[in-house]
Amino acid sequence: MEVKVVRDILEANEVIARQNWDFFAERGIYVLNLMGSPGTGKTSLLERTLERLKGRWRVGVIEGDIATSQDAERIARYGVPTVQINTGGACHLDGNMVRGAFGELDFDQIDLLIVENVGNLVCPAEFRIGEDDKVMILSVTEGEDKPLKYPLMFQVSSALLLNKIDLLPYVDFDLERFRSYALKVNPRLQIMEISCKTGEGLECWIDWLEERASGKRG
Amino acid sequence: MEVKVVRDILEANEVIARQNWDFFAERGIYVLNLMGSPGTGKTSLLERTLERLKGRWRVGVIEGDIATSQDAERIARYGVPTVQINTGGACHLDGNMVRGAFGELDFDQIDLLIVENVGNLVCPAEFRIGEDDKVMILSVTEGEDKPLKYPLMFQVSSALLLNKIDLLPYVDFDLERFRSYALKVNPRLQIMEISCKTGEGLECWIDWLEERASGKRG
Repeated sequence: MEVKVVRDILEANEVIARQNWDFFAERGIYVLNLMGSPGTGKTSLLERTLERLKGRWRVGVIEGDIATSQDAERIARYGVPTVQINTGGACHLDGNMVRGAFGELDFDQIDLLIVENVGNLVCPAEFRIGEDDKVMILSVTEGEDKPLKYPLMFQVSSALLLNKIDLLPYVDFDLERFRSYALKVNPRLQIMEISCKTGEGLECWIDWLEERASGKRG
Repeated sequence: MEVKVVRDILEANEVIARQNWDFFAERGIYVLNLMGSPGTGKTSLLERTLERLKGRWRVGVIEGDIATSQDAERIARYGVPTVQINTGGACHLDGNMVRGAFGELDFDQIDLLIVENVGNLVCPAEFRIGEDDKVMILSVTEGEDKPLKYPLMFQVSSALLLNKIDLLPYVDFDLERFRSYALKVNPRLQIMEISCKTGEGLECWIDWLEERASGKRG
């Protein structure tokens, strides 16, 4: 019974997400859905990314949070159009919530839309929002077993940013084992090691993002 | 519409959770619901706790995971009765899942039941399972703003274990600010600073847990 209800919700979401995707495709806008646990560095990555894309791409941001607009305020400082979605308790964004933000952004002025999802390694993976790519962040402090324990997010992501590599000397994290677990779950996953604190590895990430977004721009 | 469905699920869960609580109360069993993000140290805390309770309490463990039985295998090494619940994709345990484990444990031989929830800072806070206390773990690598961004889990928890304090020299984490945020959200929250790696602060945690569990034992 409960399973049935959940399936209905997921199917209804697929329809809306597809309509969102069509909306963005007509306008040549590339959409990124950024996912990861609380505290893994989603907003920091977004800040470093906005610094590097400045002047080259017209970026828009949708910030998903359960409560507060802290992240949106952090991001608005970078001078990009930013909309905050408060999910009111829900643990993920869905297609309908993202659509609710359509009236708040001028999409004629945006080439690349980054949506920061609610901090959660589980549910956001189940709900499409109309994105071209899902990208997940995981930090080395979270442990190397996560691909096995939370497989869906690794499966649906195009790329994985392994963050906080500056902390590797201080934590027990076996990089090779992590890579083998992640690739076992998703052999096509693009894994990039980064540190939002030191900037290490971010060029590689920006290259990947720009290449993906260029494919969408007609 | 969707809100209505969610409310029905939560209400049905409350009924089952209350029945679970009665079941445990009749047997004088104290039940702890352990929650926190993926990788924050729930299983490590459980291991350190089992070492310290050995010979003093008859402990049982229920391990909640989306997939795999890795954690249950880690815990079974400590010689305590352990049941694995695989949620099959669901991002939290609920009362009914915990009830499903009743036949798998001999509750005449258990005084203290520890339930390790799915790694998630959001949804587990909404679903009672029949516990006496919810306890959450957060590690200093997750950032000091989390009480404001994920308030519900802080509100429903009796105690918060701030883990990985051995990493404090290497991360930006303002302890005083964190405390003030957490206590703003829940003024009665018992905050304990610990390191499962070095053992720092664990005596304080064990004292707290034993005091709580003693109250239940008739």
